[in-house]
Amino acid sequence: MTVRQLSLPELVNGLLAAGVPGVGLWREPVAEFGLQAAARLVREAGLTVTSLCRGGFFTAIDPAERARALADNRAAIDEAATLGTDTLVLVSGGLPPGSRDLAGARERIADALGELAPYAAERGVRLAIEALHPMYAADRCVVSTLAQALDLAERFPAEQVGVVVDTYHLWWDDAVAEGIRRAGAGGRIHAFQFADWVTPLPAGVLNGRGQLGDGSVDFRWFRSQVEAAGYRGPVEVELFNDGLWAREGHEVLRETVARYRAHGR
Amino acid sequence: MTVRQLSLPELVNGLLAAGVPGVGLWREPVAEFGLQAAARLVREAGLTVTSLCRGGFFTAIDPAERARALADNRAAIDEAATLGTDTLVLVSGGLPPGSRDLAGARERIADALGELAPYAAERGVRLAIEALHPMYAADRCVVSTLAQALDLAERFPAEQVGVVVDTYHLWWDDAVAEGIRRAGAGGRIHAFQFADWVTPLPAGVLNGRGQLGDGSVDFRWFRSQVEAAGYRGPVEVELFNDGLWAREGHEVLRETVARYRAHGR
Repeated sequence: MTVRQLSLPELVNGLLAAGVPGVGLWREPVAEFGLQAAARLVREAGLTVTSLCRGGFFTAIDPAERARALADNRAAIDEAATLGTDTLVLVSGGLPPGSRDLAGARERIADALGELAPYAAERGVRLAIEALHPMYAADRCVVSTLAQALDLAERFPAEQVGVVVDTYHLWWDDAVAEGIRRAGAGGRIHAFQFADWVTPLPAGVLNGRGQLGDGSVDFRWFRSQVEAAGYRGPVEVELFNDGLWAREGHEVLRETVARYRAHGR
Repeated sequence: MTVRQLSLPELVNGLLAAGVPGVGLWREPVAEFGLQAAARLVREAGLTVTSLCRGGFFTAIDPAERARALADNRAAIDEAATLGTDTLVLVSGGLPPGSRDLAGARERIADALGELAPYAAERGVRLAIEALHPMYAADRCVVSTLAQALDLAERFPAEQVGVVVDTYHLWWDDAVAEGIRRAGAGGRIHAFQFADWVTPLPAGVLNGRGQLGDGSVDFRWFRSQVEAAGYRGPVEVELFNDGLWAREGHEVLRETVARYRAHGR
């Protein structure tokens, strides 16, 4: 998604040229390219698919809408398995229109996880709950902190449901170190994602994630916490940024790798 | 601030006509009208000044900038005393340019409170730390949750330093009920403010606070929590909203009172 202006083959070539060993994929470009073709492309390139984004949106009250969401998540799990990744990232969903019941929405997420986790486990896929920044609580994700994500995940076996540690969403929280320790101790850090926090935020606050080093996030601190918690998996860089998307994709990819080397390890 | 298009005399007349017994004031319009004149205006109208907004911005590292901030806060305390309010609301400040040290910034806030709280207490003014929504952590306020605000406030006597419970900033947090209990038990709820959460957020995310009832906040729930915690003080409605500011001020004031009656009590 960081370089969505690149086609999948361009992305794969760029990653290989930059010496990046894996890639997190999104469902939409994979579907556009063709699921089987995408799976073959990355496999033949020798790239690890670190995660698939995204399932989720579990908070609907309407039974038909809820059934559609569950069916779509089963499809996402199947796609993850086909791509050879063990991790499906979940954005859990916001408040249904007109609702003000955060606790109820969170409970419906737990119900959906209960239905999906065994299905995913049978296919070798772990569900990774992503806490989104509280500014998305109304319209995208009522899971706003790492502690909340863990409260949900811990209702299920660690090999079935874990969490994403994403610096963009969590950097402000003085409880995040404790959350990382707790997640690591439980074997529940299923993904680790970098984006920087830059201001001013754009209208809609969706596409203003900063290039690494441009903002307020102390990536080395995050990395030290996550590694101290026992995490040895990949680090993904996931930037939604209109400015980066407007530039030539390979240049952005090279810049991102350079920034990662300068700030993130 | 909700109806900043009104002059202070217009505001006072509008409040009296609507049967609103008090008003929270901001420093800038007070200074423009004249501090003594403003104090006389509200006193002679029989209105309570529920709070003065705002002091704070304590996070500078540069000693000269820090000294200026402290001097400005002493002036704000003096103004609060002159206006006859017992509460100065504090927006504590964001990260200094180039800094990524949230913990250090929070510690400088505590240092500033230590210098200012006795000065305020001598003048009958309480300092009320406002946790701002985490989307403001970088550029306005590194105090992002009620628990953080209480961690700071509890270093000082309750009659000197307390907190603001503002629905706009806190509604998403599943720990807010516990924070309200803790704040109430300590006698530290010094102000209680209403604004609704509406999306999409505008660019810069400053002036998109929703009219009561338009968004995701369950005001009755908040009110029940705050009252159960022992709070018996005023409720302030504080909306920063470009749309409301563009409308005729008395109409917005009447609408706000009607919305408060419909949703907030």
